[in-house]
Amino acid sequence: MIVKRPAIPKGAPRPRKAVIEMAPYSPPTGGRLGKLRLDFNENTVGCSPKIVEFLKTQLSAEHLAVYPDYASLKPALATFFRVEPGQLLATNGTDEAIQVLVNTYIDDGDDVLLLHPSYAMYRFYAEVAGASIREIGYREGTLDFPLDELVDAITPETKAVLIANPNNPTGTGVNLTGVEKILRRARKAAVLIDEAYYEFCGISALSLISEYPNLFVSRTFSKVYGMAAMRMGVLFSQAGNVEFLHKAQSPYSVNALAALAAQEAVRDTSYVENYVAEALAARELLCVGLEKLGIEYIPSQANFVLMRIGKRAVEIRDRLREMQVLVRDRSYEIAGCVRVTVGTREQTRRFLDALREIW
Amino acid sequence: MIVKRPAIPKGAPRPRKAVIEMAPYSPPTGGRLGKLRLDFNENTVGCSPKIVEFLKTQLSAEHLAVYPDYASLKPALATFFRVEPGQLLATNGTDEAIQVLVNTYIDDGDDVLLLHPSYAMYRFYAEVAGASIREIGYREGTLDFPLDELVDAITPETKAVLIANPNNPTGTGVNLTGVEKILRRARKAAVLIDEAYYEFCGISALSLISEYPNLFVSRTFSKVYGMAAMRMGVLFSQAGNVEFLHKAQSPYSVNALAALAAQEAVRDTSYVENYVAEALAARELLCVGLEKLGIEYIPSQANFVLMRIGKRAVEIRDRLREMQVLVRDRSYEIAGCVRVTVGTREQTRRFLDALREIW
Repeated sequence: MIVKRPAIPKGAPRPRKAVIEMAPYSPPTGGRLGKLRLDFNENTVGCSPKIVEFLKTQLSAEHLAVYPDYASLKPALATFFRVEPGQLLATNGTDEAIQVLVNTYIDDGDDVLLLHPSYAMYRFYAEVAGASIREIGYREGTLDFPLDELVDAITPETKAVLIANPNNPTGTGVNLTGVEKILRRARKAAVLIDEAYYEFCGISALSLISEYPNLFVSRTFSKVYGMAAMRMGVLFSQAGNVEFLHKAQSPYSVNALAALAAQEAVRDTSYVENYVAEALAARELLCVGLEKLGIEYIPSQANFVLMRIGKRAVEIRDRLREMQVLVRDRSYEIAGCVRVTVGTREQTRRFLDALREIW
Repeated sequence: MIVKRPAIPKGAPRPRKAVIEMAPYSPPTGGRLGKLRLDFNENTVGCSPKIVEFLKTQLSAEHLAVYPDYASLKPALATFFRVEPGQLLATNGTDEAIQVLVNTYIDDGDDVLLLHPSYAMYRFYAEVAGASIREIGYREGTLDFPLDELVDAITPETKAVLIANPNNPTGTGVNLTGVEKILRRARKAAVLIDEAYYEFCGISALSLISEYPNLFVSRTFSKVYGMAAMRMGVLFSQAGNVEFLHKAQSPYSVNALAALAAQEAVRDTSYVENYVAEALAARELLCVGLEKLGIEYIPSQANFVLMRIGKRAVEIRDRLREMQVLVRDRSYEIAGCVRVTVGTREQTRRFLDALREIW
């Protein structure tokens, strides 16, 4: 990605050094409706129809005019996630969860540990905060979670460790024994385990919260719940930590319709369970199909698979797009790799047919 | 307001000093639907019914599952506000506009000038950033804009000046000559003119953007547009500045439904014009009514009026609430003052009747 560095207008105030130096992040979100969306790991079918019906009954001119009120949201989320209401913070997507965590704990120059490649927003918010960032690479070849390397890199000065489990875009993860090893080593740090893809792998650190006061877990309604348009995330930690996170968060950052939709979403759990079962079957189908085509891939614990396409990565991405099939090129960070979301088996067959045609 | 300072859980990471020291901000947003809402300066009738109808036609399971796409939003807003698309940033309410501005320009310890009393979120984000904050008071008695005092306080070290015009909760404002005086003095600072209540006073600094590279203007859809539930704001500046602001902003912070609603809102301008006319007539009625009751007030340029209730401020607020009429106590920052929103004349009559009964 070639990135143009903006120039400060004549006479304009000078942005902070951290902002001048950071790279712009503009994911390709335009014009995706109606296409086969296998590029952002969303629910490829859509959210539960019950959410749509519920929002339609709740929409009114008065309701839209009133500042959001989260009084019923917090207990509903707490019950669903089996935590106390004081142990969670509703956020404007996982992005705000990361931002609030960083704003609460990270000062200019603080040591922050990330893995690479991973979700771009950890680095983004750490850069905005002016952190001193160190990145540990996923293991060469297998792209396995580099547990020993990460644990070795943690020092008493480390102020945050930000991890996606399972990770995006590798699809690989770490088990709870590994998570606890990190938590015990990083005693002075805020350790975020971002579980955006939890539902596809079933491993969660949420039950460790009472034991580890340095643990923060995030979940999202943007992936399996099919609510990416709504921006709804949740950040968990011990209640005493959440009080500080709450202090650093805007009082109305979550849209009132997102808050309503989330409450309906957790009432309709069978929708999500069925979707997960379908996506896991589709992932199996995808892997078999890739093997038949002789395309290597990284075994995944999430609703996407990283394929080793090789030198044709960008070309294949572009030719698939011409056929209305969207996938995400990652070759700029992992040589030759393209990421494809799994949705239903029928969608996976369409993807494989398209890929076969141009392969 | 007595504020409990949270304790850091044993073994938990230590929050930043700025976060430990800042006061929690939790506005009383609970259980307001269905009451006479004269406490948050919202549109008291509701948003345009066309917005509700439009959202109902756009709501679908697929649409909600897709990450927001702002491709059509930016040109629509640019046309409506008569700026170039590159001169604006859509934000998650005005709050995110303030946050992005502060994140882009304010480093730990930087000199930031605010007025007092004013909208709480300027201080909030400046505190999160660890800024060195100086506050200039609105003038004793009249609560007029302290132009000379502010201009005198600006130094070559000042990095930001954050102003609401007209101001909340005073309702008083500054004219464009005054704004230019500030802009010329604060050459090295980012000067924010938050025009959340612009539509009720008609004075805007937006036309000065091409002339002053240190000027930032914000507008909101939360007030006259009746979309507070949706969180939709806009931040304007020269395109070169907006590029840096954009770098410091999350790529999906605005909810997709908010983006749709804003596009419908700017198509239905007569709704807003009619509401403004009604609210201005209601404000006149309110002032006459207060005079009859012998209650002093601060003449306002916005859709609210600050009343000098005296020692009974909190009691009057509570007794009005028992009558299902919500107003906002401000006596913790301006002795004896209570703020009341103006909506329609009929609502104002209901408010005056209730006030007369307990006065």
